Amino acid sequence: MTIDTNPPSGTRDFLADDVARRERAFTTVRHVFERHGFEPLDTPAFERLEVLLGKYGEEGDKLVFKILRRGEHEQAGEADLALRYDLTVPLARVVAQHADRIVEPYKRYHLAPVWRAERAQRGRYREFVQCDVDVVGSSSPLADAEVIVTVVDALAALGLGDVEVRLNSREALRGLIEAYDVPEGLEDAALVALDKLDKVGPDGVAAELRDRGVPAAAVEAMTADLAEEDAHERIRDRVATTERGKLGLAEVDDVLALVAPALATGSAVFAPLLARGLSYYTGPIFETFARGLDSAIASGGRYDRLVGVFSNRDIPATGGSIGLERVLLLGGSEGTGGHAPDAMVAVFDDDARGDALAVARRLRDAGLHADVYVGSGRLGRQLRYADRRGIRYCVLRGSDERATGTAAVKDLRTGEQSNMALDDLPGHLHRLLRTGSRP
Amino acid sequence: MTIDTNPPSGTRDFLADDVARRERAFTTVRHVFERHGFEPLDTPAFERLEVLLGKYGEEGDKLVFKILRRGEHEQAGEADLALRYDLTVPLARVVAQHADRIVEPYKRYHLAPVWRAERAQRGRYREFVQCDVDVVGSSSPLADAEVIVTVVDALAALGLGDVEVRLNSREALRGLIEAYDVPEGLEDAALVALDKLDKVGPDGVAAELRDRGVPAAAVEAMTADLAEEDAHERIRDRVATTERGKLGLAEVDDVLALVAPALATGSAVFAPLLARGLSYYTGPIFETFARGLDSAIASGGRYDRLVGVFSNRDIPATGGSIGLERVLLLGGSEGTGGHAPDAMVAVFDDDARGDALAVARRLRDAGLHADVYVGSGRLGRQLRYADRRGIRYCVLRGSDERATGTAAVKDLRTGEQSNMALDDLPGHLHRLLRTGSRP
Repeated sequence: MTIDTNPPSGTRDFLADDVARRERAFTTVRHVFERHGFEPLDTPAFERLEVLLGKYGEEGDKLVFKILRRGEHEQAGEADLALRYDLTVPLARVVAQHADRIVEPYKRYHLAPVWRAERAQRGRYREFVQCDVDVVGSSSPLADAEVIVTVVDALAALGLGDVEVRLNSREALRGLIEAYDVPEGLEDAALVALDKLDKVGPDGVAAELRDRGVPAAAVEAMTADLAEEDAHERIRDRVATTERGKLGLAEVDDVLALVAPALATGSAVFAPLLARGLSYYTGPIFETFARGLDSAIASGGRYDRLVGVFSNRDIPATGGSIGLERVLLLGGSEGTGGHAPDAMVAVFDDDARGDALAVARRLRDAGLHADVYVGSGRLGRQLRYADRRGIRYCVLRGSDERATGTAAVKDLRTGEQSNMALDDLPGHLHRLLRTGSRP
Repeated sequence: MTIDTNPPSGTRDFLADDVARRERAFTTVRHVFERHGFEPLDTPAFERLEVLLGKYGEEGDKLVFKILRRGEHEQAGEADLALRYDLTVPLARVVAQHADRIVEPYKRYHLAPVWRAERAQRGRYREFVQCDVDVVGSSSPLADAEVIVTVVDALAALGLGDVEVRLNSREALRGLIEAYDVPEGLEDAALVALDKLDKVGPDGVAAELRDRGVPAAAVEAMTADLAEEDAHERIRDRVATTERGKLGLAEVDDVLALVAPALATGSAVFAPLLARGLSYYTGPIFETFARGLDSAIASGGRYDRLVGVFSNRDIPATGGSIGLERVLLLGGSEGTGGHAPDAMVAVFDDDARGDALAVARRLRDAGLHADVYVGSGRLGRQLRYADRRGIRYCVLRGSDERATGTAAVKDLRTGEQSNMALDDLPGHLHRLLRTGSRP
């Protein structure tokens, strides 16, 4: 057999411990979102091709996994469906399709896998879970603030309480470009360069700005401000010299005034160079950093022209996304204990099979996670199986115990064995599990 | 805009109530599986094409959703990946790939969507959730019994306690074919016809057997037995006249002897005509029926030659699958209450926004699901929003309440309004929610 049994490039198999760890994080996040009044949405894994294409730019379109037509159409080699690339375009479709069932402002969360045919590399996957909260149908800064507070609370619940929210706005960035006399066509290039300040320093930014064709006078003015101790205030003052900049700063201040006192953990600051990659943002934008990490673990912003794309109207929207795969890689949401059953019922011989099932029934009815050894190995092998699965307590019922209505429990960690009446077994195991996990 | 915003044919959007109902069922099933010592597995949505093709027969292969190669290869119109068609082939791949991490007998469950390009029709979807438990690496009837007990317990937890498990075995069916002198090449055709007894009656079965070319003598012998009151016993006696039949009956009896006393709900019986559609079964097979329904809501059996397909060895395996989509359509797992937040904090004016977030924080910290109205509507519209979302209690803080440290709670169902100190608000709402849901 020459078939490659690795999961496809950029995807992963999740065995028990991984599933348990991931599900714990998912459940944590869902609870926070629901506590904040967001409601769940789920959509199909694939969409009609025309729903997806043209929404992510030319580069994005190339990364969409397209699905071949079926049956007689398969030979043509054409696609009619494609795997979901993000959770925002499906949201836009749902808002158009189910307008009668949706109450605006629509506060929805969506936690689901998306698929992108990116070059697979360490920590970057072709199948990964996205975790979005969005408010559709409100232009109020309260909506932006609610999204940020919800995201920060979710991060705290995942064990990342020490975060800094950095806020900016698209309008403020436009004001900045205007204030420093960057030619309009170079806006995006200049913003990309400025956003790298933390990574490459003022000189690095200056070099990149020049490389990208920004006029020398603008580069000098910017780098002079960037090099100063109070760079942020200087830039803010410059931004405030333009009309657009003033509007943008007011947006930021509105959101900041709501967010800062509402945060239970972490802090929020104005970040005048924060640009965010996606060009679809229209208002306040944010990124959230955990102390000691140099890339964002959550981000988002206002995008007032995307959700209405299928509805023939502009619909204001603002949202945030938690980099849950990243958080999981960081070991956030590390819970205690794995996924092993509480106990295993051993099977002494073929005549004891029914008895083993009956004992397991008692334990399960008492709320215990009880495995029965269902293979055909002898006792030694059964105990090795339990040990390898991380099961600590094994219930043994030989013919003596069966005759006398008793059971023995073997602690595989200490080797100790104790006997008791069968009726006492569930309570005994509950007690062992409560105390046994202490050091 | 002419884009169709319906979800693709055979798929569904799930808004909040649907997600809540489905997640409740999923959680219920997962808990039962884990209580029975099964551990979770998750695999990618797609597999390499060569992993999937050739496993489901010619008809099945046609129903696989194939994914186009990407980038420069896209033009060729060829596929290299395909969406998962079931959860069994991924299990077989995982068993080969992660042999070093898996402890046999490997008791795993997998609850995940699969995709099949079947003709979409009412109650049949192209994207649907499968829910499987399997034991890999054991030939013991205890493994078959454990699967059945687990499946029945899960159905009971979903509200379907009154079920009948019907058991048969592939070997017993072969014995039956032999006993009635059906030519070997007609075995499958004859079994399909016999399996329809409940639907078409003895005469219908006889007609179909003749249509399918089964010799008249065999048809007569079978239908004579089928018409009798004690048809099952007569068939059993016939089956027992062959060597294979004897082996098969022993298999069924072994499993039945373990299952029948171990069931907490429902019953288990021998069903000599039960055939199951899939040809990959090799041992005991079962279907589970809820009272009053004429098609199975769970089924499975032993398939000793499939899981080893990527491992170059035969690996015994037995498993069961719950028709969870079917159970959900039946309204099984209907929980109480929807997904609405417990309360909404209204926002009197722009100056009250920060206060609204602070009040929401108090409620959320007290474990309540608290929405804040994040739109820009006035109070009447805010209350309509709450009502449409199914939120019963609205917290009102006008300038008077803010000045005096109090809050008003309006019950949207009764119109009653009560005032209290802000500090008492969370406790007050908890009390209202406990009593308010009573009739």
